[in-house]
Amino acid sequence: MKELKERILREGKNLGGGILKVDSFVNHQVDPHLMDACGLEFARRFKDIGATKILTAEISGIAPALTTGIHLGLPVVYARKHKPITMPDQVFLTLSPSHTKGRTVELIISPEYLAGGERVLIIDDFLASGATILGLARLANTAGAVIVGIGALIEKSFEGGRQALAHLNIPIESLACIRSMEGDQILFEEQVTL
Amino acid sequence: MKELKERILREGKNLGGGILKVDSFVNHQVDPHLMDACGLEFARRFKDIGATKILTAEISGIAPALTTGIHLGLPVVYARKHKPITMPDQVFLTLSPSHTKGRTVELIISPEYLAGGERVLIIDDFLASGATILGLARLANTAGAVIVGIGALIEKSFEGGRQALAHLNIPIESLACIRSMEGDQILFEEQVTL
Repeated sequence: MKELKERILREGKNLGGGILKVDSFVNHQVDPHLMDACGLEFARRFKDIGATKILTAEISGIAPALTTGIHLGLPVVYARKHKPITMPDQVFLTLSPSHTKGRTVELIISPEYLAGGERVLIIDDFLASGATILGLARLANTAGAVIVGIGALIEKSFEGGRQALAHLNIPIESLACIRSMEGDQILFEEQVTL
Repeated sequence: MKELKERILREGKNLGGGILKVDSFVNHQVDPHLMDACGLEFARRFKDIGATKILTAEISGIAPALTTGIHLGLPVVYARKHKPITMPDQVFLTLSPSHTKGRTVELIISPEYLAGGERVLIIDDFLASGATILGLARLANTAGAVIVGIGALIEKSFEGGRQALAHLNIPIESLACIRSMEGDQILFEEQVTL
């Protein structure tokens, strides 16, 4: 998606170690119009997969999942990383290594909002190693739901997430796919024309 | 706002101790269309205050802040509760007691995204004691920004947040204002007609 790639080139910062800082429009400050455009694009790409629910992980997945939900007319569930007091004692819980946090985090979903038979579209901000998305897929499977699609704003193809998710055999879409980051140079899989 | 109040009456659960569970449409599962309608309503109420930025706190404030941002055409910043590795070492940080967490949480904003002179509209899911919103206001003031409005999806007027924020002398809007919760009975300040 041209608009997102241009924004990454303009404002994204390679912090080294595979970390791309996009705090000015995704992860701390959010550009609502860009996020809405990304949701519209996800809705276009996933309109025919028969999804019944969108699943994401707090925190930074919420914005793109919400705008996708607006355009597809589907409820959004965000997996919690800490069990709130409003959640029942029996939950779906899995552990997932977090690259940017340098530790394992919990992903928790209440059985109230993920039922057997649901067709789940996973939306997240990043597809890197695929660990978070695999965690969400495990939770969905435990609930008896089926994952029918995966969408990420930004894919870092050099971290192998797409391969790690290949066995799911479902469409995986990213709106900006980064092939490499060397110093200030960020290269996309499809060359962007500015 | 009729649609939100009806939803609270239909799906909200009084868990006791002043805790209202709205996990099925706000805090864990999100209804994107309802959230979009709430954003539109906030945009209508705050269209003339000259805001330049929307500020909220992760996690549950993100959805209503984002839809308000879409309709007002303003960037959204969400205060983080844990400093991510993408954030610089020098940050604005304040402590805020969390009623639902039973402990103090940090609210952190990078100076990159909150500058002196900004006119800040705070949007959050709940206005209860006002502690989180006061924390956000402290951060904004430290940054040299001015708070020009406060919006909450759900106000619990019996927890006194509006009084705690009165000294700010700015418009405070809630879309559903709960006067009392007794057992299964949730009463609004303005009686809702179903």
